[in-house]
Amino acid sequence: MGSGPIDEITEMVQRIVGRAQSAARQLAKLPSDLKNDALMQMAATLEAEEAALTALNVRDVGRARDNGLSSAMIDRLRLTPQRIRDMARGLREIAALSDPIGDVTHMWRRPNGLEIGTMRVPLGVIAFIYESRPNVTADAAGLCLKSGNAVILRGGSESIQSNLALSELLSKAAATAGIPGDALQMIPIIDRRAIFEILKMEKGVDLVVARGGEEFIRTVVDHSRIPVIKHDKGLCHTYIDDETDLAMAASVAFNAKVQRPSVCNAMETLLVHRDVALGFLPPFCDQLKASGVEVRGCPKTLSIVPWAVAANDDDWDSEYLDLILSVKVVDSLDDALDHIARHGSKLSESIITTNYQKARRFLHEVDSAAVFVNASTRFTDGQEFGFGAELGISTQKLHARGPMGLESLTSLKYIVYGDGQIRE
Amino acid sequence: MGSGPIDEITEMVQRIVGRAQSAARQLAKLPSDLKNDALMQMAATLEAEEAALTALNVRDVGRARDNGLSSAMIDRLRLTPQRIRDMARGLREIAALSDPIGDVTHMWRRPNGLEIGTMRVPLGVIAFIYESRPNVTADAAGLCLKSGNAVILRGGSESIQSNLALSELLSKAAATAGIPGDALQMIPIIDRRAIFEILKMEKGVDLVVARGGEEFIRTVVDHSRIPVIKHDKGLCHTYIDDETDLAMAASVAFNAKVQRPSVCNAMETLLVHRDVALGFLPPFCDQLKASGVEVRGCPKTLSIVPWAVAANDDDWDSEYLDLILSVKVVDSLDDALDHIARHGSKLSESIITTNYQKARRFLHEVDSAAVFVNASTRFTDGQEFGFGAELGISTQKLHARGPMGLESLTSLKYIVYGDGQIRE
Repeated sequence: MGSGPIDEITEMVQRIVGRAQSAARQLAKLPSDLKNDALMQMAATLEAEEAALTALNVRDVGRARDNGLSSAMIDRLRLTPQRIRDMARGLREIAALSDPIGDVTHMWRRPNGLEIGTMRVPLGVIAFIYESRPNVTADAAGLCLKSGNAVILRGGSESIQSNLALSELLSKAAATAGIPGDALQMIPIIDRRAIFEILKMEKGVDLVVARGGEEFIRTVVDHSRIPVIKHDKGLCHTYIDDETDLAMAASVAFNAKVQRPSVCNAMETLLVHRDVALGFLPPFCDQLKASGVEVRGCPKTLSIVPWAVAANDDDWDSEYLDLILSVKVVDSLDDALDHIARHGSKLSESIITTNYQKARRFLHEVDSAAVFVNASTRFTDGQEFGFGAELGISTQKLHARGPMGLESLTSLKYIVYGDGQIRE
Repeated sequence: MGSGPIDEITEMVQRIVGRAQSAARQLAKLPSDLKNDALMQMAATLEAEEAALTALNVRDVGRARDNGLSSAMIDRLRLTPQRIRDMARGLREIAALSDPIGDVTHMWRRPNGLEIGTMRVPLGVIAFIYESRPNVTADAAGLCLKSGNAVILRGGSESIQSNLALSELLSKAAATAGIPGDALQMIPIIDRRAIFEILKMEKGVDLVVARGGEEFIRTVVDHSRIPVIKHDKGLCHTYIDDETDLAMAASVAFNAKVQRPSVCNAMETLLVHRDVALGFLPPFCDQLKASGVEVRGCPKTLSIVPWAVAANDDDWDSEYLDLILSVKVVDSLDDALDHIARHGSKLSESIITTNYQKARRFLHEVDSAAVFVNASTRFTDGQEFGFGAELGISTQKLHARGPMGLESLTSLKYIVYGDGQIRE
């Protein structure tokens, strides 16, 4: 066997997974009241420890700055008092949601008298692997607890201090309400080999949720023997139709780009119908410029906004996550739909229009997790959708798509009541 | 580049996937009436071609017998007039089901006035890889068509003649109703490398459904870059409680073992409470013996049924798919639950009891796709559940669990109606 470091990592991960499995079996049977008490305790603890948490986080942020991380990365990493209060609010909102476990969503009777129902059950053990963003630690803990799953967390190495402190606080708070201590565990080391060890444990882990950059997700998917739900790229479009309210168009598009450019549901490409380009683009681009946004335009855009940078082919496929916007003038709704189908990441797109038929066509024909009419793509978010919080935004079609709330962390089983039926 | 055989296979599979993608985009928009017409045409064609199909199948069966396949395998392979009529009936039942595509399952309003709904959409392109069983070809074609997905089929090499004939008939029948010809395609070669080529095409194929033996499924999962839904092992248990109707217990357990032993939802292990073992086992085992079933018992079973074979440790983990049953006498419901948790495959288990609390405990605590009270495990089946047909029985928890009907072949997208909302 030997006692080299990889053996130690393997053993550590196996112990963590084994404890999570035991906790999952207990969690599956817990009543909703107990789970909700725990969530309220967790929220209160976060607020009580706000000063200690922000102090710890300052160290993570300082180290990240020393290591030369981008401003977008540093923004994600930051744990402000406001974000801590948001986490607490998220936990209380999760407590207020109805418990999905045990729900029989429907039940029907067969001609032979069998009564068949579908009952929601927990998945079991979830491994959640994410980059930076310590504030998602609380969301993940709350959603997994409420849905009766044990969770193993592995946050980004940049935020390890903040994450370890958070998970320890949350786990202890939950335990005071009677939740098994191993229901929430954080991998305590930075070594990436711990991730690869988890991904091999298909007998003990039911689902891997991976949230991060494209390359990171690709590595996780390639190494996993466990089903993975991805939260990777967000290349979101807003299309300004020729039949539109230009003031609303400017307000919504500006919000989609500028309000928080570092996140996946921010707009990266603006498509503008040629018949409104001349009236819309000059004032809108001036407004962007005043907010520090670099505009990269197609040739038609450049003819209207001469100070813009010329976009190259890569721009239409780029997720900037920064104050940069690519702008393209299109000939029609069909043109816009084609561009989105070719370059979009299927996360979130919006049309700004006053035309009924075009709104309906856009809703039906755009194949994205969330399709908007006359609203900012930034609303693609579990809290904004009313889920209390989100474990991530699934960018795939299987099992869960879009913001992942409680239901996406459950499975079903068929329960069948008979009185001696046999098959002919 | 070269022109060796593997390049030819790669190119063939790429062409098939490309055509399926085009067909999928058309299928997604087709009205229900047109899809239902196609299903009725397909059913009528199968019935009209019954003689030709059974004649072709006789050749597959003959070759399988020459190759020494087991009687269980040959049973699965067989295409009888009855099974052809069942396929046609399945297609008509699918036509009668309501179309899931476009359903907005619920819609809610947020405090800011956004209206958010979840709309069912097709997955896109499904690759269905299965062993023998030509009759599932029609089920797969019907379910994928109705749910708006293009499907690429790859049946077992033993039934290639039957499968190619079936898929050609079904595709032509669907085309007369206006379905794109490439909506249903069968890989026309036996070479297994074609499967590995499909499994690499994560950009073109949205879901792989794999149905077959454990080893086959393991190979598919290990090689796939595409999410896979597995239909593998079925090690089903029936537990005879001490508070029970012994006549019903015998009837249900006999059905679960003998009615069709070669399929995954047949019972493999019988658990009997010690207090009824003496009264139940002797007549029941005699009945089994008279039907040619070999009984492999635990020591207590052997003391009651001396002619039984002694079970070894492997028997409790064996999916016989044949006329063999392992029998264990247990001390309590808890004992039975423990045995199922340790040895079961989480597909289908049944309790035979007259006790209300024990029925409820069994339903809640057994973690299987389908849990029965007082009915045969053989009912774990899409047709028996009222789904018209099934693409398989998912033995995993993600996306789809248990018999896979229309809904399991769909995804969701969020549609959001706004009037200028921006995020604060």
